[in-house]
Amino acid sequence: MTEEQFSPFFERIERPNPDKAVDFQRHGRLKHLIFGSQLNVPLLEKLCRSADTIRTMARTVDGHRSLRNLLAHKRAMLYFTQPSTRTFLSFMAACQILGITCNEVRDPKTSSEVKRESQTDSVRMFSSYFDVIIMRSQVEKFAEVCAYMMNDLEETEQRSVPIINAGAGSDEHPTQALLDMYTIYRTFRFPQSTAQESSRLSQLKREYPDLVSGPQQKTYLFCGDIARGRTVRSLATVLAQYPGVRMFFVAPDHDALRLDKKLESNLIASGVDIRQFGSLDETVDGQPILAQTDCVYMTRIQREHNSPETETELAALDLEPFRLTKSRVNQLKSFSAILHPFPRDRVVGEIPTEVDQDPRALYFRQARNGMWARAALLVHLFDASEDLIYAHSQSLQSSS
Amino acid sequence: MTEEQFSPFFERIERPNPDKAVDFQRHGRLKHLIFGSQLNVPLLEKLCRSADTIRTMARTVDGHRSLRNLLAHKRAMLYFTQPSTRTFLSFMAACQILGITCNEVRDPKTSSEVKRESQTDSVRMFSSYFDVIIMRSQVEKFAEVCAYMMNDLEETEQRSVPIINAGAGSDEHPTQALLDMYTIYRTFRFPQSTAQESSRLSQLKREYPDLVSGPQQKTYLFCGDIARGRTVRSLATVLAQYPGVRMFFVAPDHDALRLDKKLESNLIASGVDIRQFGSLDETVDGQPILAQTDCVYMTRIQREHNSPETETELAALDLEPFRLTKSRVNQLKSFSAILHPFPRDRVVGEIPTEVDQDPRALYFRQARNGMWARAALLVHLFDASEDLIYAHSQSLQSSS
Amino acid sequence: MTEEQFSPFFERIERPNPDKAVDFQRHGRLKHLIFGSQLNVPLLEKLCRSADTIRTMARTVDGHRSLRNLLAHKRAMLYFTQPSTRTFLSFMAACQILGITCNEVRDPKTSSEVKRESQTDSVRMFSSYFDVIIMRSQVEKFAEVCAYMMNDLEETEQRSVPIINAGAGSDEHPTQALLDMYTIYRTFRFPQSTAQESSRLSQLKREYPDLVSGPQQKTYLFCGDIARGRTVRSLATVLAQYPGVRMFFVAPDHDALRLDKKLESNLIASGVDIRQFGSLDETVDGQPILAQTDCVYMTRIQREHNSPETETELAALDLEPFRLTKSRVNQLKSFSAILHPFPRDRVVGEIPTEVDQDPRALYFRQARNGMWARAALLVHLFDASEDLIYAHSQSLQSSS
Repeated sequence: MTEEQFSPFFERIERPNPDKAVDFQRHGRLKHLIFGSQLNVPLLEKLCRSADTIRTMARTVDGHRSLRNLLAHKRAMLYFTQPSTRTFLSFMAACQILGITCNEVRDPKTSSEVKRESQTDSVRMFSSYFDVIIMRSQVEKFAEVCAYMMNDLEETEQRSVPIINAGAGSDEHPTQALLDMYTIYRTFRFPQSTAQESSRLSQLKREYPDLVSGPQQKTYLFCGDIARGRTVRSLATVLAQYPGVRMFFVAPDHDALRLDKKLESNLIASGVDIRQFGSLDETVDGQPILAQTDCVYMTRIQREHNSPETETELAALDLEPFRLTKSRVNQLKSFSAILHPFPRDRVVGEIPTEVDQDPRALYFRQARNGMWARAALLVHLFDASEDLIYAHSQSLQSSS
Repeated sequence: MTEEQFSPFFERIERPNPDKAVDFQRHGRLKHLIFGSQLNVPLLEKLCRSADTIRTMARTVDGHRSLRNLLAHKRAMLYFTQPSTRTFLSFMAACQILGITCNEVRDPKTSSEVKRESQTDSVRMFSSYFDVIIMRSQVEKFAEVCAYMMNDLEETEQRSVPIINAGAGSDEHPTQALLDMYTIYRTFRFPQSTAQESSRLSQLKREYPDLVSGPQQKTYLFCGDIARGRTVRSLATVLAQYPGVRMFFVAPDHDALRLDKKLESNLIASGVDIRQFGSLDETVDGQPILAQTDCVYMTRIQREHNSPETETELAALDLEPFRLTKSRVNQLKSFSAILHPFPRDRVVGEIPTEVDQDPRALYFRQARNGMWARAALLVHLFDASEDLIYAHSQSLQSSS
Repeated sequence: MTEEQFSPFFERIERPNPDKAVDFQRHGRLKHLIFGSQLNVPLLEKLCRSADTIRTMARTVDGHRSLRNLLAHKRAMLYFTQPSTRTFLSFMAACQILGITCNEVRDPKTSSEVKRESQTDSVRMFSSYFDVIIMRSQVEKFAEVCAYMMNDLEETEQRSVPIINAGAGSDEHPTQALLDMYTIYRTFRFPQSTAQESSRLSQLKREYPDLVSGPQQKTYLFCGDIARGRTVRSLATVLAQYPGVRMFFVAPDHDALRLDKKLESNLIASGVDIRQFGSLDETVDGQPILAQTDCVYMTRIQREHNSPETETELAALDLEPFRLTKSRVNQLKSFSAILHPFPRDRVVGEIPTEVDQDPRALYFRQARNGMWARAALLVHLFDASEDLIYAHSQSLQSSS
């Protein structure tokens, strides 16, 4: 994308995120989801409730049928010019659950680009045929530009559709933060509706007297590729909103991987207690860091963005201290969660497959949570949350 | 495609279009849509009415649901071996509105070709699984060959499906002509159902006393790549059926771009008043041509078909006289329509983005019209026009 | 796929097929379809009955609607890393008939592989989002490994989905055998529900006194690429279960093409009467082999698997004796079936197009049968056979 195509939007996109967040919502509801900090606590709670409702309804054939009718009058464009399998398929499945029909453009060199069409014309074309544009792009801020273009169209009473940022370069990946948060909410909810659940909670409270429900008052450990992991940036930013959050960052001693200064100062400004380590085996206050961790967020060392020089330097690193082996898992609290945005690297083995059977290994469930959380986001953007609640109550009645 | 595969059809496809048009219809209804001249005036009026009905129904969730049930028992094959994004997505959306499930083959080198399958075998395979074949091909007349193959199968009581030509080389693009005509119909309809509409028409009649409703008695200006624009050829041929049509062709002075002799003589034979110009700023009868124009049809100079020699020659041309700048737009009649089949060239800028806000700039609506018009065509080919009218009347009743 | 990823499954996949077949079923119903010998006679009869029901229901709009609701709560992944058009589209159509929404990964180099994700992680990711995985791979036994992985997940009460092998290297292609058998069942059923049908059977019995109904007591002639045709291997293995089966194998005199020893000994062990020939014009017991054949199974000489050396040797072969020309077709019994898994080679012309009009030429219907047979398989795997019968009886009532 040439700068020329961005120019009408320059002034607006250069402002700080909180100022822009206001432009991307209306009466407290999102118009577009562009960056992680749009996901404030009340919105997250609302989306997690919707995701739970969708998940519950999908358990029965009738509930599934109601879901499929909810947004069956909508058509989505998945515009993924940066390759992705997992996020793409997760959005496809989310759309399909709600009856939304899917369309895709994935080739970075579409025929229109060959014909010298501007990318903003392409996106406006998509908005002519489809009702939401879910986009992943190498171009930083492109989703934001599209969101502002849609806002301008809306103001002149022309057709306008919601934009979802499904990952932009090394910048932001807000829906990954959403599904991570959904998994964290579910992990730290500690329901007590059955005797068995209550008894488990009592036992946990004996073992960990300070344990509270929810994402707050917890220690999160991020391990691996901290600097380039846009999922780390988006999730840490969202978690910083909760009180009493402590974050451990464990990364090899290399500038391409360590926590960058900008994120560090943002987190500190939000009141997060930050510690940095060079191995999963370090201790703090005389206790292993793993034993103090409520949630481990493992990441893959991203090789695809390396310069040849960085490649050589990283190849020389010893990654063993950053692998969550079974013996390290054994140090974790009994209720803690092991997350990974996936894919994992089968050569490095930052999480060896032997860990997959551990009850704390939630990364496959986390992937499936992405489907429910993204469906909840679509329901929200199409202002169908009430329809969802109504459909759920109807399906409960018909089954009783 | 080797000539050998064409050979059983040679005799038939070499005949003039009107003779062939008879083979592609039954009791006045199309069996296949292969070339623009099949779109006669009564058929166009019928398709435009259906498109209007579909557009109206799609405004409500209930109407949308009825539409989605209309052809939900049909499966489409989009066989696009020539790259296309816009036409492809427009057909996808049209199918989805009607509940038709879509399948695609887009790679020019499919696995079957590697295995030396004939293209006619491939198309017959598609007709085994799917209920309509929408095809775009580099190979001239290939859609026609397929239509005749289907006719032959039908005669021997074997499975046969409709063929839609979605663009063939530089030859024909009949569904583009259909959507252009739908936009022209809507522009020149001048409804009077509200007081506001009647008042607008009275004012227009004062300003333009000769103004009549419909595509007839109008001046159409085609600008840009006249010779190679298959959309120009298809649309001009269709428009030539209406009485009192005048056409201005504005193109750079180069054989690769100017109106070709064959189309020129066809249009003259149809009674069209033709004028050719070398700039948008020329005059006729002492008045600027733009001031006399009811509808401007802008096109992109197609570079992808250039020989290196032509490329060099065209690069030397001054294209400024062929750009519809804001000041040129200001010369147009107040009710006129600016169309463009899109994509537009962001480097040449034949329509600068500053024009997009002008109320006469209809090119984005034109794209969306393509979706409704193609849906109407599918309804027609599947003989579901009466079902559509019935579904519409039902949805009116349920909403009242 | 590295051996390391296979290792947890080595011991199990090295056992003979009958032992493994037990692992891929439950209470007589398939959990996964991996190899042809899982298709035993009672299962085949059940699947053919379901396919007939689906075919019948699809004739009416109401029946089609019932079918589309049958499995509309399911989502399929078509994971085709080995190129295929025909099998892919056939599965797509089968899914669409039943309302199953389709998703695909076709690029052998997906983004996740670039990121060094293991293929088993990829498949488990698919199983997070989708409800069945239909896979075609170059890697022998990969589908089997996935089926065992799903079994292991099921045992630990984790999410598990059915695996369908849609063709694996030169190994197995069980759903092709299924559709071939469905076509054979339909050909040799000889219904007598109408006077016309009864009269046809009486006439056939006068002409062929030994004629019985069903696949048993028949002579099957396989011609062309016997050694490398996985469809031949799968079909012959399935047919060997029926009593009184005789098989003629007609192939050029080259090791890359002739019946291989392993299949030969397996068939003999099953009691099949096997004969091998070097031309379609040979005789046995003084009578032309074609005159004794009930079903001809033609195949394409597969060039895509040739080494340069083999390519040169095969290019020197005279393939004329292996072409089913019109005069050879004339020697066949009046009720016999000509099958071909397709695509056919338009250069070699193993079945010339002039044969297409012969009533015994069933290869296009065979392709369409693939759609119905695969739909029946999906109904079976999702345990929806009873729902299908119920939906059929409902649609009969509503139409009467």
